[in-house]
Amino acid sequence: MAHSKRIESVQALLRRKKIDALLVSQPQNRRYLSGYTPIDHNIGESSGVLLIPARRPPLLLTDFRFQIQAENEVSDLEIMLYPKGLIALLHELLPDLAISCLAFESQYTLHSVAAQMQAMADTIGLTLLPVNGLIEEMRLIKSEDEIDKIRRSVLLNEQVFQQIYETIVLGQTEIDIALSLEASMRKLGAESPSFETIVATGRRSALPHAIPGPVAIEANQPLMIDMGLLLDGYCSDMTRTFVPGTRNSKYIEIHRLVRKAQQAATNTIRAGISGAAVDKAARSIISDAGYGDYFGHALGHGVGLAVHEEPRLSSRNRKHLRAGMIVTIEPGIYLPDWGGVRLENMAVVREDGCEILNQDTTWLDI
Amino acid sequence: MAHSKRIESVQALLRRKKIDALLVSQPQNRRYLSGYTPIDHNIGESSGVLLIPARRPPLLLTDFRFQIQAENEVSDLEIMLYPKGLIALLHELLPDLAISCLAFESQYTLHSVAAQMQAMADTIGLTLLPVNGLIEEMRLIKSEDEIDKIRRSVLLNEQVFQQIYETIVLGQTEIDIALSLEASMRKLGAESPSFETIVATGRRSALPHAIPGPVAIEANQPLMIDMGLLLDGYCSDMTRTFVPGTRNSKYIEIHRLVRKAQQAATNTIRAGISGAAVDKAARSIISDAGYGDYFGHALGHGVGLAVHEEPRLSSRNRKHLRAGMIVTIEPGIYLPDWGGVRLENMAVVREDGCEILNQDTTWLDI
Repeated sequence: MAHSKRIESVQALLRRKKIDALLVSQPQNRRYLSGYTPIDHNIGESSGVLLIPARRPPLLLTDFRFQIQAENEVSDLEIMLYPKGLIALLHELLPDLAISCLAFESQYTLHSVAAQMQAMADTIGLTLLPVNGLIEEMRLIKSEDEIDKIRRSVLLNEQVFQQIYETIVLGQTEIDIALSLEASMRKLGAESPSFETIVATGRRSALPHAIPGPVAIEANQPLMIDMGLLLDGYCSDMTRTFVPGTRNSKYIEIHRLVRKAQQAATNTIRAGISGAAVDKAARSIISDAGYGDYFGHALGHGVGLAVHEEPRLSSRNRKHLRAGMIVTIEPGIYLPDWGGVRLENMAVVREDGCEILNQDTTWLDI
Repeated sequence: MAHSKRIESVQALLRRKKIDALLVSQPQNRRYLSGYTPIDHNIGESSGVLLIPARRPPLLLTDFRFQIQAENEVSDLEIMLYPKGLIALLHELLPDLAISCLAFESQYTLHSVAAQMQAMADTIGLTLLPVNGLIEEMRLIKSEDEIDKIRRSVLLNEQVFQQIYETIVLGQTEIDIALSLEASMRKLGAESPSFETIVATGRRSALPHAIPGPVAIEANQPLMIDMGLLLDGYCSDMTRTFVPGTRNSKYIEIHRLVRKAQQAATNTIRAGISGAAVDKAARSIISDAGYGDYFGHALGHGVGLAVHEEPRLSSRNRKHLRAGMIVTIEPGIYLPDWGGVRLENMAVVREDGCEILNQDTTWLDI
């Protein structure tokens, strides 16, 4: 069972670092280690934490609202409820478990909560240790089983796109199309979108983070759709740009340039190359054509249980890619007062190259 | 202009507390003070912060992705971008502004970010001061203009409910109905749902936080819908429970009891009563009828720019309500293996009573 293996790895790591236990509060980390699926609607409304002692079985700590779900999803873990809140429970529980050094996730703990934990720690002689990215580091390299799940997420996302693409007609608004896409995702079995769907028409496609508006789609102008879904816990993320109606020569020029940049980057990806080098492969093509100032974001990011995770394909990431990482490859050119083109695929890093997870490339080569 | 008055109140408070500036990162607090609307998709992906010096004009600090939106929405504030990140910008900016004591929102700052800020502060001799609920406290009492916005949000929410109610047929699933409601919200002008819509049929209505599933709605069984939307920044929140088909005597008994508890609580609400006393007015009716163990949550919560805010109508809140607060009144009875009934209205606390914002009470008295 993947979860128990992962827990064992964490416990071995804790023992090496001489930490008695780790508190895991980040939702994707919780899910990775236990299968417990609830998200937190915001960081202040937690749906529970995993307490992983170095030398004892882990526990899931939550409240009554999630009791039934917890019992269904993590039947192999002990579940404890905290009617008086997490910190009151830890105050009682940690001394009983002989835990005197507790690590917590600094990147998913509020300053106010850490302060309350520290006050509690002081009363029981507990040492608190903030840690960064411990579980995220484990999540970087995907197993073949995880890659399979991500592949299915990518394919379902393409199916949704194709289904709704065929219903697009002039007179529809960006919101109409976004809602159709999100409804189709859920009807075809996705848990939810993996981020807010972007649909941007005409000049609005020059805004990399456009929110769909009550704006009718324009004939003969770029239409950019950036969409993803969550299937069995794993995310997909894909951008397609096309023209309802007739493409003009400017559109064809920009689209082909973006596609060329995407292919150049794709050809460089393999274990051992840096994120920066992959970014540069795409960026230099766009810069050489005179559009360097109009590609204002990084080339790509990791995808897994979270839609944005490490590694970044950006000029700042000097670290080497490793086999089993999954990244997006999404160059774009955004011209104010004209519009934008972004094309985004997902790929698995392999020892000697990469494997594109997208199957339908109809939209890419024009 | 409401925003500049609010900023002035914050600045006066900072001067009284001898704080040189406040960093506002919580999205609803940002919007309350400036009109800047972006949400943060998660706390680690901020769309900007307000820097409010005690004796100078405030600034909005953000990154290039939000530049155009910021310029459109907060034209009266200076906007600065942070290409190297917020902390690098503060490191340069704070000494220039002669800020040597900076407060930050402890309840909306990650421990990891606070640690980085502290390291930066140490290099420039800055004192960092965590604060809790400073702006939230200002947001507690709504102006008549805010009450008007919330009223419109409530009425639009009722309109959406009514529109979709008339399309509900057996054979539909919980997901179908939830998607129809959320699509209708956005088509009628809402920014978004204010929380994930709950649609729960039959026994599933006994789960207070049911997630809509691919489950066909059951004839002659309770159907619970808890829904809300965001209009012009302000939230609504409403629950209706009804029976598609024929109600049996058990349903009628439970529904009438919940309604009686709701009315008893409503009759007690006025400035000066405690949240606990209002909760008790509803709870004692349900307990006296023998269902006390099946009403497992608090009676209500504040609503405003956030869908869950202070004050709580719960047994733990001894504080007095004040005129201009807005609360939900939502008693429920949840019977495992049978189902649940929850009825939820929203009300404004007034000096001598309360004003129910809901207009359509068709669903309440059966």
